[in-house]
Amino acid sequence: MILDGKGLAKQNETILKEKVTNLKGKFGRVPNLKVVLVGDSPASMAYVTSKKKACNRVGMDAEVIMLDINTTEHALISLIEKMNVDDAIDGILIQLPLPKHMNETYVLNHVSPNKDVDGLHTINGGKLFTKQDGIVPATPLGVMMMLDHYQVNLEGKHAVVIGRSNLVGMPLSKLLLDKNATVTILHSRTKDMKKYTLDADILLVAIGKPKFVTKDMVKKGAVVVDVGINRVDGVLVGDVDFENVSEVASLITPVPGGVGPMTISALLFNVIKQYEVKYHD
Amino acid sequence: MILDGKGLAKQNETILKEKVTNLKGKFGRVPNLKVVLVGDSPASMAYVTSKKKACNRVGMDAEVIMLDINTTEHALISLIEKMNVDDAIDGILIQLPLPKHMNETYVLNHVSPNKDVDGLHTINGGKLFTKQDGIVPATPLGVMMMLDHYQVNLEGKHAVVIGRSNLVGMPLSKLLLDKNATVTILHSRTKDMKKYTLDADILLVAIGKPKFVTKDMVKKGAVVVDVGINRVDGVLVGDVDFENVSEVASLITPVPGGVGPMTISALLFNVIKQYEVKYHD
Repeated sequence: MILDGKGLAKQNETILKEKVTNLKGKFGRVPNLKVVLVGDSPASMAYVTSKKKACNRVGMDAEVIMLDINTTEHALISLIEKMNVDDAIDGILIQLPLPKHMNETYVLNHVSPNKDVDGLHTINGGKLFTKQDGIVPATPLGVMMMLDHYQVNLEGKHAVVIGRSNLVGMPLSKLLLDKNATVTILHSRTKDMKKYTLDADILLVAIGKPKFVTKDMVKKGAVVVDVGINRVDGVLVGDVDFENVSEVASLITPVPGGVGPMTISALLFNVIKQYEVKYHD
Repeated sequence: MILDGKGLAKQNETILKEKVTNLKGKFGRVPNLKVVLVGDSPASMAYVTSKKKACNRVGMDAEVIMLDINTTEHALISLIEKMNVDDAIDGILIQLPLPKHMNETYVLNHVSPNKDVDGLHTINGGKLFTKQDGIVPATPLGVMMMLDHYQVNLEGKHAVVIGRSNLVGMPLSKLLLDKNATVTILHSRTKDMKKYTLDADILLVAIGKPKFVTKDMVKKGAVVVDVGINRVDGVLVGDVDFENVSEVASLITPVPGGVGPMTISALLFNVIKQYEVKYHD
């Protein structure tokens, strides 16, 4: 059975549309997201466009601000600081990766934690790490929304996460722990990866290698979540060999149509959360 | 063989004493720690006294500020804010637990991240979570110093952590991951704990239950680190059944004399780090 992220994200849009309408009625304006893209890599262009479109579909304002690849770090931070104090803006998303002449952490820490919709400000990372309410990165949040929707029981289950990035692996591991899963974190230096994956009740893969997880690595009946998006000969391929692994998994996300749409859905919820925080302060 | 935290902490004091002498020569003053204790619980009194004494042994200034148990949160925060802007103070430690009428996270987030020596400010948690340089909680830092000293190889090894607290379990897990261990985090809701502990190359226990880990739960040759400090009939007992587990472990920490002294040692290094950051800014 498929974990249908595309379908769930579509359902969520109905909920989000209602929320936006209610907020507009209550506070006189709709949530507003600014997406900043430095450079014009086709992959990044596609991502920011789909984020903007999703905002618009649910009635939010969204603008993509495109900056030249040679923009200085200083100029980018100046722009961020202007947006931080602009009351008409609720969310600021800096599309990654930034060009190599910029320090990503340094730049992201200039986005106000109250307008950070990617959960990448250090203070939002700290809140997640210490179980305080804050903004959670959209991909792990989207995964958790999907597992929750499909009523995947995590309590006491062995969740195995492949990957330990700040964007996915680490926050996802913490969210699974907070749901009382027993969590194992694997990565490129892990020895005998199969020993761990074969024991996983829920296997979550974010290692960025096409079809890395094969059928022989998965326990019968496991839930498999594929966070990978790799382009192989122009085709999108996940980190899981879907065709074969789906024969043993009880639930599995396709690529595309699994985690991807849920990431965008979670982003929209983050924008609304920041909007609401503003009016509750 | 014993992981001799007491002995290592003593060796560290020679290093720390030298550092303090050098800093005094360079900047004209020694590092200064303020330890704030609200109330007079005997256990907390013993902890703060041993911290102050350790500071003094290596030549640092340290003062214990004792506040009445009925001190308001507001009064405590006012005191912290005064200390934050006092250039003669390098480190501020708020002894936990605080009385129940206070919100610990709220109070700890008022300590300047640049004077936080417990690594409990949210921003320091976020730095650890996202692999930025910052202040790490003393107990996990002390454990890592000990493993490093005994040249315990973590690369690709299976490290199993029992406990997921903000003070020990979570930061310890992240530090082990950063050393390329494969990390599993167990906790009170884990089912079949033995399955995981028996596979551990390094087993780290911080669950707060006397003699919780028994011989049958430990793989032959494993390294066992006991973070527990429990008082049973007036005697200090760890979370590990030391007598029996030491028959199978290759390396094991005693309680007392293991992690405890290393925690204080790590605290002193944190104070010096904050002092040095001040002069490098």
